[in-house]
Amino acid sequence: MSNSQDNFFNVCLRGASQVFFMENALTGVLFILAIAYASFAAGAWATTIGAVLGLIVATLTALLMGTDDKSIKSGLFGFNGILVGVALPTFIASSPTLWFAIIIGAALSTVITATAAATITKSWGIPGSTGPFVLTGWLMVAAAYAFGALEVTGDSAKEITDYLAGSASIPSLPELIAIFFKNIGQVFLLGNAVSGAIILAGIFVASRPAGLAAALGSLVALVCAICMRADPASVSQGLFGFSPVLTAMAVGVVFLNTSAKVVIYALLATIVTVFIQASYDVLMAPLGLPSFTAPYVLTMYLFIAPKKFMAPHPHKSVEKHLLHGN
Amino acid sequence: MSNSQDNFFNVCLRGASQVFFMENALTGVLFILAIAYASFAAGAWATTIGAVLGLIVATLTALLMGTDDKSIKSGLFGFNGILVGVALPTFIASSPTLWFAIIIGAALSTVITATAAATITKSWGIPGSTGPFVLTGWLMVAAAYAFGALEVTGDSAKEITDYLAGSASIPSLPELIAIFFKNIGQVFLLGNAVSGAIILAGIFVASRPAGLAAALGSLVALVCAICMRADPASVSQGLFGFSPVLTAMAVGVVFLNTSAKVVIYALLATIVTVFIQASYDVLMAPLGLPSFTAPYVLTMYLFIAPKKFMAPHPHKSVEKHLLHGN
Amino acid sequence: MSNSQDNFFNVCLRGASQVFFMENALTGVLFILAIAYASFAAGAWATTIGAVLGLIVATLTALLMGTDDKSIKSGLFGFNGILVGVALPTFIASSPTLWFAIIIGAALSTVITATAAATITKSWGIPGSTGPFVLTGWLMVAAAYAFGALEVTGDSAKEITDYLAGSASIPSLPELIAIFFKNIGQVFLLGNAVSGAIILAGIFVASRPAGLAAALGSLVALVCAICMRADPASVSQGLFGFSPVLTAMAVGVVFLNTSAKVVIYALLATIVTVFIQASYDVLMAPLGLPSFTAPYVLTMYLFIAPKKFMAPHPHKSVEKHLLHGN
Repeated sequence: MSNSQDNFFNVCLRGASQVFFMENALTGVLFILAIAYASFAAGAWATTIGAVLGLIVATLTALLMGTDDKSIKSGLFGFNGILVGVALPTFIASSPTLWFAIIIGAALSTVITATAAATITKSWGIPGSTGPFVLTGWLMVAAAYAFGALEVTGDSAKEITDYLAGSASIPSLPELIAIFFKNIGQVFLLGNAVSGAIILAGIFVASRPAGLAAALGSLVALVCAICMRADPASVSQGLFGFSPVLTAMAVGVVFLNTSAKVVIYALLATIVTVFIQASYDVLMAPLGLPSFTAPYVLTMYLFIAPKKFMAPHPHKSVEKHLLHGN
Repeated sequence: MSNSQDNFFNVCLRGASQVFFMENALTGVLFILAIAYASFAAGAWATTIGAVLGLIVATLTALLMGTDDKSIKSGLFGFNGILVGVALPTFIASSPTLWFAIIIGAALSTVITATAAATITKSWGIPGSTGPFVLTGWLMVAAAYAFGALEVTGDSAKEITDYLAGSASIPSLPELIAIFFKNIGQVFLLGNAVSGAIILAGIFVASRPAGLAAALGSLVALVCAICMRADPASVSQGLFGFSPVLTAMAVGVVFLNTSAKVVIYALLATIVTVFIQASYDVLMAPLGLPSFTAPYVLTMYLFIAPKKFMAPHPHKSVEKHLLHGN
Repeated sequence: MSNSQDNFFNVCLRGASQVFFMENALTGVLFILAIAYASFAAGAWATTIGAVLGLIVATLTALLMGTDDKSIKSGLFGFNGILVGVALPTFIASSPTLWFAIIIGAALSTVITATAAATITKSWGIPGSTGPFVLTGWLMVAAAYAFGALEVTGDSAKEITDYLAGSASIPSLPELIAIFFKNIGQVFLLGNAVSGAIILAGIFVASRPAGLAAALGSLVALVCAICMRADPASVSQGLFGFSPVLTAMAVGVVFLNTSAKVVIYALLATIVTVFIQASYDVLMAPLGLPSFTAPYVLTMYLFIAPKKFMAPHPHKSVEKHLLHGN
């Protein structure tokens, strides 16, 4: 890390930007600003402090483990850590043990990132993406239920029958616009439309096609969730949109080369993600765990793996998003 | 697809026959007849219409994705689609959104089939088999609980304690014969003995050893489930037999070359499938989801993977059941 | 198996010793003694008889399957079988069907061991370890709930909310010492401090570094579980310690070459295992299943897989713990 561009500070900022597949320090600054804005609006700063702590610990762990230098510099070991750092304070009450849990969780997310690279990425070209965050988040929040020293606040076990009913209601235009941006903000677990707008701006700073895919993914998810009559409270919080946003970006722009066929494929993947979001909501309710970005992760794994079966679709662009040196 | 034998119609019929590992258009006709007979007997045609729709959409998706031509012609991209098309109307009430869900689900089953081929088949020689149907079926039925536009009718969440009691009762001979055939019919989710007999005839049309394995698998499952005192209501519907039937065929005839040792190995696998069927019934009850053919899929994956450890067992026959071009 | 050292009796004893990664017949004798002592203290011999039966059936199955001779001689096909043989009588009431279930389960554990070797070990260098036991144990105990012929006694489905509360209490010194040894005994499902001490002696007989790692792992787990205020009843039975003991040995000594960095890595892994133990307790409660050594298995898989990313850590020592011939 001799280059001044590659100092620890910039590497961490790139790590933040990689949550949306970008490798751009300015985008990272905007993403952290979006988290800070939501903290400011809510008057609670634990998520912002957690984000910074998780980002630093995850990146440091990668350095100490002696993993591939190029991957570290690209920020590929930071983005799962920042998500762990935002997620744990969202679901666990603030306390000294919470910060200990974030440190352990962020370090674990780096170990799992390296494992994903050495297994599914190496053998099958499937990027680990935010899978390590999802697994870490589930393990840590579930552990918090069993530990007296960690208090779960943000969620609770529900009966599966709570989901048996849905209702038909179409939100007003201002509501629809707010949902459009919350769908993007919720990738960072932020139910805040302004934060979502800042994040979308951050994506456009780094890549216009990626920004466009994010916007279209949010729109498709919005329409699909309302037509299928998903729980209006969840829809209005952006909870049916954040995974589809990531799917639209990943399948439509980031991991496959955009073409007419790929756009249709990404549209199918985006709709499938809305269905899988609904599945996860039902299946995880009895466990009292949020689904995090798992619906995106499962969809993306399933839709990216068969790329060798799709000879006409070039997919070189995936290379730079994979961990190197394995 | 220049050959007249390989027109879309024949390819779809072969896809239907592949549910039982066959590649025979006439067998496919008999299987669809069996589904139609059960629809006729029940006076509800949604499963037959769903079967045809799922079969066509799954096969078309494979063509559009540009997957391997030889695999498509063999029907290897159709059998998961037909199962999705039968399963969704069995568990979700008929409505326009149901047909939309079948289209999305059938297309998804093809994507997952391609993913299985590119991962576990390519690396480990494990056929995807009906795994893509199981995963798709679980995701779609679970999503239906969360969507107001899809009404789940065929199942519901149960308390795990509902399974704590079993009772001892040996069915009468006519009941035993009906169960013998229902064990085969339930592979297509048909609790109808006549449909089971038509299906068994369809298997014998294509392969006598396969038909014999199916019959023996049904018998072993019947004896084992009754001896272990499984829930009599489930046993009498054939629900403890359909996965073992597939296991007996897959392990005893289709994926390994039959020999005395392989027959013992297949017998162990068939008994294990009855145990795993019981496990899944218990483990999935709180989720309100059927186990579909998951007990077969897990057993088969576990018993086929170690084939390199079993040098004396030739296993060339597996090749033609694997997807090509990967 | 011409060599007198390699007679079936010695091979089985080595299989027992492999539960703690050792390959030493004397260690195997001590381990079986520890199980017998706990049976004697409890006045119930089913676990000891089950252990011997499971060990023999699993090893015989490997011989009949024609798996790699060297692996069989090392005892690598026995240790999952002995654990199945101890676990099933712990959770299922004694009856003729129990012994049938142990035979089927032990044979299945060998099939899964071969599958793990042919998949995750071959592709990624991840040892199957006690993963096959965990999967077999879950399937068999879950099946027992559904079978009238098998009565589950040792566990029951709990509400997830039972785990919402923890309390702060530090055990007395004699209690702490008893927990220290029970943490080791519970690897064989023995809540007996004397048995734990015999097992620890058996490990030291075969390897001092391994014995030291086991002792340190027990200590770290003890401190961590108490600080996080885990359920005191579980902690005092050694249920928060047995998986971390295995993790400390596996990551610190057995699968990586010990160094300062590896010790820190093993410390992180051991703490993570305590968290994952807590997670599993919560997540499996609604299913009425014990977590067995699953927290160790998951942690070990995650921490061993990325070894290629850790160039400075030699890891030759893993070779002799992997199954050969694949």
